[in-house]
Amino acid sequence: MAGTLGRVLGLACVNILLLLLFSNNSVYSQSIVRNLPGFHGDLPFKLETGYTATGEKDDVELFYYFVESERNPADDPLVVWIAGGPGCSSLRAFFYEIGPLTFDYSRSKDEKPSLLLNPYSWTKVSNVIYLDTPVGTGFSYARSSDAYRTSDTLSSKHVYNFIRKWLIDHPRFISNPLYVTGVSYSGIVIPIITQEIYNGNEAGNEPQMNIKGYMIGNPLTDRNIDFNSRIPYANRMALLSDELFESAKENCQGNYISVNPSNGLCAKNLKEVEENLNFIYGYQILEPSCGLVVSGTSSLRKSRVLNSHRKNLFNPLRLPQQHQQPRCRGDTYDYYLVWANDRNVQRALRIREGTIREWEACNTDHYLVGKDDTETYSYNVASSVPYHRNLTNKNCRALIFSGDHDLVVPYIGTEKWIRSLDLTVESSWAPWFVDHEVAGYGTTFSHNDYSLTFATVKGGGHAAPEYKPEECLAMVDRWFAQSPL
Amino acid sequence: MAGTLGRVLGLACVNILLLLLFSNNSVYSQSIVRNLPGFHGDLPFKLETGYTATGEKDDVELFYYFVESERNPADDPLVVWIAGGPGCSSLRAFFYEIGPLTFDYSRSKDEKPSLLLNPYSWTKVSNVIYLDTPVGTGFSYARSSDAYRTSDTLSSKHVYNFIRKWLIDHPRFISNPLYVTGVSYSGIVIPIITQEIYNGNEAGNEPQMNIKGYMIGNPLTDRNIDFNSRIPYANRMALLSDELFESAKENCQGNYISVNPSNGLCAKNLKEVEENLNFIYGYQILEPSCGLVVSGTSSLRKSRVLNSHRKNLFNPLRLPQQHQQPRCRGDTYDYYLVWANDRNVQRALRIREGTIREWEACNTDHYLVGKDDTETYSYNVASSVPYHRNLTNKNCRALIFSGDHDLVVPYIGTEKWIRSLDLTVESSWAPWFVDHEVAGYGTTFSHNDYSLTFATVKGGGHAAPEYKPEECLAMVDRWFAQSPL
Repeated sequence: MAGTLGRVLGLACVNILLLLLFSNNSVYSQSIVRNLPGFHGDLPFKLETGYTATGEKDDVELFYYFVESERNPADDPLVVWIAGGPGCSSLRAFFYEIGPLTFDYSRSKDEKPSLLLNPYSWTKVSNVIYLDTPVGTGFSYARSSDAYRTSDTLSSKHVYNFIRKWLIDHPRFISNPLYVTGVSYSGIVIPIITQEIYNGNEAGNEPQMNIKGYMIGNPLTDRNIDFNSRIPYANRMALLSDELFESAKENCQGNYISVNPSNGLCAKNLKEVEENLNFIYGYQILEPSCGLVVSGTSSLRKSRVLNSHRKNLFNPLRLPQQHQQPRCRGDTYDYYLVWANDRNVQRALRIREGTIREWEACNTDHYLVGKDDTETYSYNVASSVPYHRNLTNKNCRALIFSGDHDLVVPYIGTEKWIRSLDLTVESSWAPWFVDHEVAGYGTTFSHNDYSLTFATVKGGGHAAPEYKPEECLAMVDRWFAQSPL
Repeated sequence: MAGTLGRVLGLACVNILLLLLFSNNSVYSQSIVRNLPGFHGDLPFKLETGYTATGEKDDVELFYYFVESERNPADDPLVVWIAGGPGCSSLRAFFYEIGPLTFDYSRSKDEKPSLLLNPYSWTKVSNVIYLDTPVGTGFSYARSSDAYRTSDTLSSKHVYNFIRKWLIDHPRFISNPLYVTGVSYSGIVIPIITQEIYNGNEAGNEPQMNIKGYMIGNPLTDRNIDFNSRIPYANRMALLSDELFESAKENCQGNYISVNPSNGLCAKNLKEVEENLNFIYGYQILEPSCGLVVSGTSSLRKSRVLNSHRKNLFNPLRLPQQHQQPRCRGDTYDYYLVWANDRNVQRALRIREGTIREWEACNTDHYLVGKDDTETYSYNVASSVPYHRNLTNKNCRALIFSGDHDLVVPYIGTEKWIRSLDLTVESSWAPWFVDHEVAGYGTTFSHNDYSLTFATVKGGGHAAPEYKPEECLAMVDRWFAQSPL
């Protein structure tokens, strides 16, 4: 693990130099990138990268990748993408979920990842800012060790300020419909960020943002509801027997996450649950787990630990040499680790030298499995339901989508907290289609000027666009256009 | 539809000739097949085809494909495979499920299907008789229109007699452990056939058969339990909302198959269920349904109708020309329709000329969607649970497996009737593994000398070996060896 101490010491050493170099950094804050290592020729879309200083002392430098809509940048929505974790880079979305490029597994070799265009990039229909947030994520960095410490609420303020400054720097996008989006842990911060935007508008902050709503996939929303939904979900999906599920429900009284240590029957049931789920790939229960085991941690935790620690396991020789998609999904992530740590790539992206030691997929300082506070991250919002509830009083649209084969944030937990909002059903549960096939099911709720669409993505995992890119692009395109799914 | 009348007329015309030709047909009853059209060179396994006359007047000619175990024919089990339908040919199992050959989609063209070896054939570990039963199925035929009429119980007697005669003709397999196996509708007849064998042994019939048990995948067992499990299963798998499911459960009182016409609330709920499931591919809910719709029938029925009628839709130009597995599973079935109707193939298989007009994947005379009696088939066993229950008093082993993504005979219905047998749990629900991955879950029950293993096949459809061949071969090999899954 890189370790907080190492990072902060590293930062201390370069701080003075950085302050000199970038004390007035507006001239360096954005660059058009025309070529990228691994992609042959000029990029056929408009990519800009840059930093925006935020935080009270402007000592938080958030890095972003911005891709203009390949359709109609002037009118298409502006989407700000917040990755999960917290602390996972938005490059994951850029390459594996909703970005314009992906890896060409048939041509990538060892340490030379090769890129190709993703026909289902959300940039086909929207302008997307892929943002590295919170501070310490991806290429984002802090100018002081104090600024490296953050939280759900603080990082949300930083994102709000980021958007404000970014729009001031890019005034031609101020009038585009604005949506805050992301997956997984961003379910905690996106409603907060969206609320900040409404608050800012109401406070008269400039520029007034054309906020239209938010969109989150397999969102962590409420620790109790979401984590407690894993066991009933596993039962539904034939991973746990009815007997064990019923026993656990009774003995643990439906609470599987903060169990009274004196409750031996519940503990026994949970141990059996553990044994049943230990080798399941939680992100998509039908995919291979590829035998990666961290002893003593639950499978629900395991995959997260492994992904965050994956860089430690990295070995270029392990990269698949055959001309096909790797069998193990985790292996596909080796490619962006190689790519983002390549000096030529960092030069192409205009990464400021010396600002980060090593690019990590997920910052292990912030990102711990139990979602207990770390030295540098305070998980100070246990549930974003109150923020959703506040937003139901705004003129606001929400799209909540769930890959229905995800054990990490199962769709039934999401259904549960949505139901708790007591909205009016506008259109009842019905299939939605892509290419004449059922792509999932959707239902729409409303409350005054608030509208919430909940959609499952059939066969999708955590997060859905990685597994069902064509379906998810169709889904958002229709939703942006206010058409039925 | 070929139509009963046509068949019987056709039979009438050829009856006299047939009687002359085959009045003493024992010399023609079995043939070693060394080559098959579509497969280059000699078959690297021992294939025998033949007919065995059964029925009171020996006027039912059941056709079989027998493949010797590629491991140790003398000691490996002897497996009799009964396909579903009723009326579907065992060639489906031979090519798509557990047989030694399959189609090479990358080389098959138009009307020239190309064959390759299936590394996961059950013939790697057992001697398999792929039997065309009941009469009128595949290449099996009747010598009289009377003999063409059959039922669950009558066809089961025919199979018992078939096995008896086959063993008399093949005495070296009499001592091999014998298992009756199959999938889907064979869940009705396999317990009956197995019971016939135990009864026959007890009655002192010769040869005494070395019956060890039976094995059925996604078995139709009890119309009430199995068909009524579809709606709760669809809810579990995120295809129906909790609201609709709860409403239907209440209004229909859990009975969704024979609804009182005056129950308008239930009818309304079932119409909504219909709308939600209409475009789902029932055999594996995550696969594309490929847009085939028969209006006015439920999706649960539709796929069956379509598959049985598929020959009418057949158009060689529709066969995929690209070097890949067809996207639509139904398209893969075109290949065996072409293959089995090829005159050269029929000569190679030693099909008796003039005995059938056209080879059908499923005999549409017998095989109707509602499982109501047809002119030629009496569905006279609504539930095979009493047969299972009888067998619990025998020295008998049962393996019941369920592809857990099958909406046609969902695993939860299977669990329910197994539970109704009131067996003792020998080993509780736990994952089983193939290649270090969870292949499904299993649990074993017992009652005196009876043992029943229930196993899910994760991600499998109806029937599981078609979707998860490697996993299913490992499963049966372990089960034959009396090892834990």
